[in-house]
Amino acid sequence: MRDFKVEEFRKDFPILSETVHGNPLVYLDNAATTHKPNQVLEAMRNYHHKHNGNPHRGAHYLSVMATEAYENTREKVRKFINAARTEEIIFTRNATESLNLIAYSYGMNFINEGDEIVLCISEHHSNIVPWQKVAKAKKAVLKYMYLNSDFRLDMNEVKEKITDKTKFVGIAQMSNVLGTIYPVKEIAEYAHTKGAVVLVDGAQAVPHIKVDVRDIDADFFVFSGHKMLAPMGIGVLYGKKELLEKMPPFLFGGDMIEYVEEQNTTFAELPFKFEAGTQNVEGAVGLSAAIDYLEDIGLDKIHEYEMELTAYALDKMKEIPYVKIYGSTDLKNRGGVISFSIEGCHPHDVSSIVDTYGVAIRAGHHCAQPLMKFVGAPATSRASFYFYNTKEEVDVFIDSIKNVRRWLGYGS
Amino acid sequence: MRDFKVEEFRKDFPILSETVHGNPLVYLDNAATTHKPNQVLEAMRNYHHKHNGNPHRGAHYLSVMATEAYENTREKVRKFINAARTEEIIFTRNATESLNLIAYSYGMNFINEGDEIVLCISEHHSNIVPWQKVAKAKKAVLKYMYLNSDFRLDMNEVKEKITDKTKFVGIAQMSNVLGTIYPVKEIAEYAHTKGAVVLVDGAQAVPHIKVDVRDIDADFFVFSGHKMLAPMGIGVLYGKKELLEKMPPFLFGGDMIEYVEEQNTTFAELPFKFEAGTQNVEGAVGLSAAIDYLEDIGLDKIHEYEMELTAYALDKMKEIPYVKIYGSTDLKNRGGVISFSIEGCHPHDVSSIVDTYGVAIRAGHHCAQPLMKFVGAPATSRASFYFYNTKEEVDVFIDSIKNVRRWLGYGS
Repeated sequence: MRDFKVEEFRKDFPILSETVHGNPLVYLDNAATTHKPNQVLEAMRNYHHKHNGNPHRGAHYLSVMATEAYENTREKVRKFINAARTEEIIFTRNATESLNLIAYSYGMNFINEGDEIVLCISEHHSNIVPWQKVAKAKKAVLKYMYLNSDFRLDMNEVKEKITDKTKFVGIAQMSNVLGTIYPVKEIAEYAHTKGAVVLVDGAQAVPHIKVDVRDIDADFFVFSGHKMLAPMGIGVLYGKKELLEKMPPFLFGGDMIEYVEEQNTTFAELPFKFEAGTQNVEGAVGLSAAIDYLEDIGLDKIHEYEMELTAYALDKMKEIPYVKIYGSTDLKNRGGVISFSIEGCHPHDVSSIVDTYGVAIRAGHHCAQPLMKFVGAPATSRASFYFYNTKEEVDVFIDSIKNVRRWLGYGS
Repeated sequence: MRDFKVEEFRKDFPILSETVHGNPLVYLDNAATTHKPNQVLEAMRNYHHKHNGNPHRGAHYLSVMATEAYENTREKVRKFINAARTEEIIFTRNATESLNLIAYSYGMNFINEGDEIVLCISEHHSNIVPWQKVAKAKKAVLKYMYLNSDFRLDMNEVKEKITDKTKFVGIAQMSNVLGTIYPVKEIAEYAHTKGAVVLVDGAQAVPHIKVDVRDIDADFFVFSGHKMLAPMGIGVLYGKKELLEKMPPFLFGGDMIEYVEEQNTTFAELPFKFEAGTQNVEGAVGLSAAIDYLEDIGLDKIHEYEMELTAYALDKMKEIPYVKIYGSTDLKNRGGVISFSIEGCHPHDVSSIVDTYGVAIRAGHHCAQPLMKFVGAPATSRASFYFYNTKEEVDVFIDSIKNVRRWLGYGS
């Protein structure tokens, strides 16, 4: 375990020392993507210099090394999220592809006319649009669970929406807009009493809090590498073996077959059944190094520190009269994502103006338009923290948003 | 343009100086995946140190830089294959995903009962299995064009199989098993007279010969980055705009939408309609550097040199009485892939034995079981060259295969 010393961590991320428009970069867009430490980049470089090959298909040394690198990562991911079996870990391109795989392979084959699919209103588009397609194709009903005034999901609402007709429930563990951490374990437990299958989107949770898929008892669980220090181009789908086994393949091609004849094909066993074509081995190598990095610090410490930053930022933001926060200011069951608006200013202008101070925040609908409509804001600005951010950076961020209205011609 | 000096090129690939089992690595598995030059690795490192961000979605500096890197690569790919429009270039995970996208989005929506899909018998599984799924789902007929005794495709066979009923033709420009370069331009021209849509799988061609998708007049064209010096995890789908425009999206999620409501979604314009979720920007950065590297040498020179190596190897292999070559020994319309068998030896044993000499070749069905059955071999060994290989490496390879039978107890 490493001591929790942010300044030491920051040395691992050369990009954090960059300047933007003449100011030190203050990167607060970690919910969109995180930076990669030298340890991750070095692991990939080492792979390319020593072990690059196409895995699974060759008897030669480099192919064997590539296979080892890839399959060792699968086992590391299994441990990281505490899955029961290595073959329950499927590598994908990103969380979005994982979600589409579930929709195409599970949704299109096991959801039928009149069945109900229940989502949370705060879902990312990637966990909404695939289910719209399934609902339309299968004549199923798509329902939403709505939030209370503190941007939380009450179990009353859960119990009202999840019924005997519910065949599928999809919910993110942490909202990428609100920062809310949902009680996914309780929701899964209740949904299972109704016989529903539960998908948890962990894209925002896995980088920031310790996740145990068996404790949650999720039937499916997905996340992306690039939001947790790993490269873009690799994601994970976890599924319970009994579900994955009965699902047909999604993408077809090399590596996922057993026998191919001119007219018919039989498919490989798990996990290969769902991995068609040359896989992203270097992405897996990077993901493996990223998991090592995070576990070396400890996810509990990461979350604790991020909540310190969040509390510090929220306290300062609450003092600014023209700032409105979209999300709970109660730190319990919350992560380091703060969506906000500045009265009279378009979020896109806010983001552009703070950018001139070197501050990277996001503006827009955050791929969650149904939530935006629900909370009555077409767009928000969003600051999102990671363990490598500092209180000094929060100060720069707060100062920068205090300048926005002046830039736009307001008196304060 | 760089002078064609292989020893200079090799310095760009540190892995080529590695030893395997105490012998210098002789990497002849380039049809499976190629190594990455320092220029590609450095471009990605620079991206991570200076410009990493999530593209398209942010107004801040790093997001803008990431968007530029990603979109500049799209334009570079357009020029590289001479597509007419930048929005005709879709980034995917690999050629396999590109092929599946076409099958799901075009095949499942525009191929109907009784329509005929015509493939070449030498197709990779990734260009067969998706079409088996389409044929079954849509009650279409799946037909194959067979090869002549020189492992070539006669236009007579093309004209017999492609008829007025043919709605779709799929063929690789170069076979990953035989090395045959097919007359895809002539085939496309003929297929178009019948009103068929033509898909060309360029995974083996693009890294080795100059490709012009407009000259071929392919309706769809696909390839992978990792077989052409770029990282794993990025591939390309080219499609004619009028086809892509009428096709529904394949994967659903962020970035590919216009408006998402609870029950309905409208989709973004091309090319974003087909790119869901966070894209592999660093993969695109690597692909861009890879294209620069290849164009700096010149693909015509690369092909010419690879054919020198191929001629040299074929001449030596033809002298070995117990070696059988699967592929034409006529160098015209052929690439640097040589499949072969050694009488009395299983290809897997051949690969394992030459591996002890440091020689990396592939053994198996090369993801082309229907072709294997057609040529009457359950498996072959395969050596595949790239411009960084040398005649001295071919000599080591030839010596190593001459030793195989002795290892297995034969007198010679």
